[in-house]
Amino acid sequence: MHFRLRKKRIYLDYAAATPVRKEVLKKMKPHMYSHFGNAGAIHAEGVFAKKSIAEARERLASTLRIRPEGIVFTASGTESNNLALLGVIESLHRKGRAYADMEVVSSAIEHASVLEVLMYLQSKGVVMRYVAVDAQGVISLPSLQECLTEKTVLVTFAYVNSEIGTIQPIRKIARTVRKFQKDTHTQIHIHSDAAQAPLWLPCALDQLACDSLTLDAGKCYGPKGIGVLAFTHGVSLIPLYFGGGQEAGYRPGTENTASIVGAVESLCIAQELYEERSVKTVALRDMFITELLTLEGCILNGSREDRVANNVHISIPGVDSEFAVICLDEAGIACATKSACGGAKGDGSTVVRAITGDNARSKSTIRFTLGEATTKSEIRSTVNVLRSHIAIVSAQMDYLTKK
Amino acid sequence: MHFRLRKKRIYLDYAAATPVRKEVLKKMKPHMYSHFGNAGAIHAEGVFAKKSIAEARERLASTLRIRPEGIVFTASGTESNNLALLGVIESLHRKGRAYADMEVVSSAIEHASVLEVLMYLQSKGVVMRYVAVDAQGVISLPSLQECLTEKTVLVTFAYVNSEIGTIQPIRKIARTVRKFQKDTHTQIHIHSDAAQAPLWLPCALDQLACDSLTLDAGKCYGPKGIGVLAFTHGVSLIPLYFGGGQEAGYRPGTENTASIVGAVESLCIAQELYEERSVKTVALRDMFITELLTLEGCILNGSREDRVANNVHISIPGVDSEFAVICLDEAGIACATKSACGGAKGDGSTVVRAITGDNARSKSTIRFTLGEATTKSEIRSTVNVLRSHIAIVSAQMDYLTKK
Repeated sequence: MHFRLRKKRIYLDYAAATPVRKEVLKKMKPHMYSHFGNAGAIHAEGVFAKKSIAEARERLASTLRIRPEGIVFTASGTESNNLALLGVIESLHRKGRAYADMEVVSSAIEHASVLEVLMYLQSKGVVMRYVAVDAQGVISLPSLQECLTEKTVLVTFAYVNSEIGTIQPIRKIARTVRKFQKDTHTQIHIHSDAAQAPLWLPCALDQLACDSLTLDAGKCYGPKGIGVLAFTHGVSLIPLYFGGGQEAGYRPGTENTASIVGAVESLCIAQELYEERSVKTVALRDMFITELLTLEGCILNGSREDRVANNVHISIPGVDSEFAVICLDEAGIACATKSACGGAKGDGSTVVRAITGDNARSKSTIRFTLGEATTKSEIRSTVNVLRSHIAIVSAQMDYLTKK
Repeated sequence: MHFRLRKKRIYLDYAAATPVRKEVLKKMKPHMYSHFGNAGAIHAEGVFAKKSIAEARERLASTLRIRPEGIVFTASGTESNNLALLGVIESLHRKGRAYADMEVVSSAIEHASVLEVLMYLQSKGVVMRYVAVDAQGVISLPSLQECLTEKTVLVTFAYVNSEIGTIQPIRKIARTVRKFQKDTHTQIHIHSDAAQAPLWLPCALDQLACDSLTLDAGKCYGPKGIGVLAFTHGVSLIPLYFGGGQEAGYRPGTENTASIVGAVESLCIAQELYEERSVKTVALRDMFITELLTLEGCILNGSREDRVANNVHISIPGVDSEFAVICLDEAGIACATKSACGGAKGDGSTVVRAITGDNARSKSTIRFTLGEATTKSEIRSTVNVLRSHIAIVSAQMDYLTKK
């Protein structure tokens, strides 16, 4: 295993995992060695940890243009999504609202950490309304309009689809919801999972007009195991679990100072330079797409315009997803069939099935996600390897058909 | 702040936080830089991460003498406690058992991450039975016997009390529960929070005869933000939240490979050498206790015999806890009033109040917890500083009384 990884590899699965930046680990280290105190302690070591967390919180809040109280540190994007969705519904339920009297609006192409929560809430009686998405995976605003009712309490859409890279018009979605809310005098919480966004798109909450946003350092050259739920204002939330009252009571457990500091460093670096990074990567991505579309049978999934800078998601009907990814891997290229959290089940991409209704297309998806270090030559090599793979697969198909 | 911490400090709050061992971070680093793949991915980088986690899981399982399937990685001891307690109760509830038809046996001196969960379960209708503890903080076995009923489904006690350091007779507790279980043909889950144990006491589950055990790397010279829930056998658990089905469905979110590897390294080092470490530290601790007891008014809390190697917990009635800890801190010594997770509220130690019924004693507690690096000379300095503090406080009291 070590041997294979030592070969020069082409890594194109940055949406699933990124390395930690050297400068991020450098910021984390003192909190592991010399300044390791518990932030709940009242001695100098504890106060130092508490102060470091407070400074990190303020820095991230300023980047997201919210108040520091609006930042809750969790252990992952998954936990942040759960805290937002379960937190809002359970809080309303505790205030006396029946589950069956609440409706949530979302879409069928969300990440597992949203869809699984919605299924759980549905099992409790909460009504789910899934908005129509077009063939590019963009939320339909007229359909959203139709899904909103006086019972709607929560709306949640990913900012960037983790599989096909489609950027949702979060601002327009929020405007539609706010208008409805105003007209009907209701109260609707707008949440967005922005785990795939900070490196490429603006994430200030006032620009997005959301109430809450999920972030994940592990997807932005920060450490794994640390997520953020960011709020624009005070929100009533029930914590997912109970303990020492850390994170203003929203999330218990000894504060993970090193990872908090590392997460903030990585997320702030992501946001500071997202425009330049995007422009540079879009050029590479478009070259990649153009070359891929010259391959026999290759189709692009998702939108060409409303697409995150680093995502290339294709289908090659007739070419099995998993087999292709394994062959590319053997040739030294790391890519994905869909989202890593979608599990290893070989039943194809639910996102592509949902937007195209095409089964063959959903079973032949390949996702390439670019990183800061990705080069033109890596992209050319990848296209060449894939071209050979398609040639072999189709030659074999021809052979079997004739036989 | 930096200036104060740069002075040579005497750190005696190892129960609240430990530094990360150099060799632990060394093992973590490759998983952050060169081998950072997502363990859910099918390419070589993903397979490497998956394999690293599997190896870590096997190594820890072998140390704890359970099967690898019995290890669930979480984000903290707090999360592990919640997963065990909520998981067992909610799983039974989902199978049709009414909350009011279930009883949990525990004690009033547990950590916040247990007590708060029990309060939540109580609010749902689950019946709580708190066992009597003696003046040393040891669980009374006759009282445990009385608390068990045919409705008991869960028993939970900390292996080591995080505040006063009392070691509970977990094996005897388990034997009592198992006998009752056999006589009544019931099924009772025995959980123990062992967050404070691995450096000092055996943690193999067969020796303890528990069904599940909570561990926390951040208290054992490992990284913060990573805990373990260990099982002897398959247990029905409902996860605390939902997502991609990682950790066999018990706990979702992208696997934190670096911290998992680091946690296992630190916990295995803790267990490998716990006996020598304990003997060495007990000698220091006993010297510390003997010298402290020469101070005017100083009383030891907890048991002298059934006490974890690194804990010294005293009361000096008339000397305010928080003021003493702040003065010691000013003199360069880091110690605690109680447990860091008990919050900053100045209402004294609930543990000491529960075992002694003495209010003055509960408001004058100081906890010193020793580490591997603690020296005799640090202990002597600490005793001297505390002696001066007591002298000043009592001189001031005399002055104020005479005035």
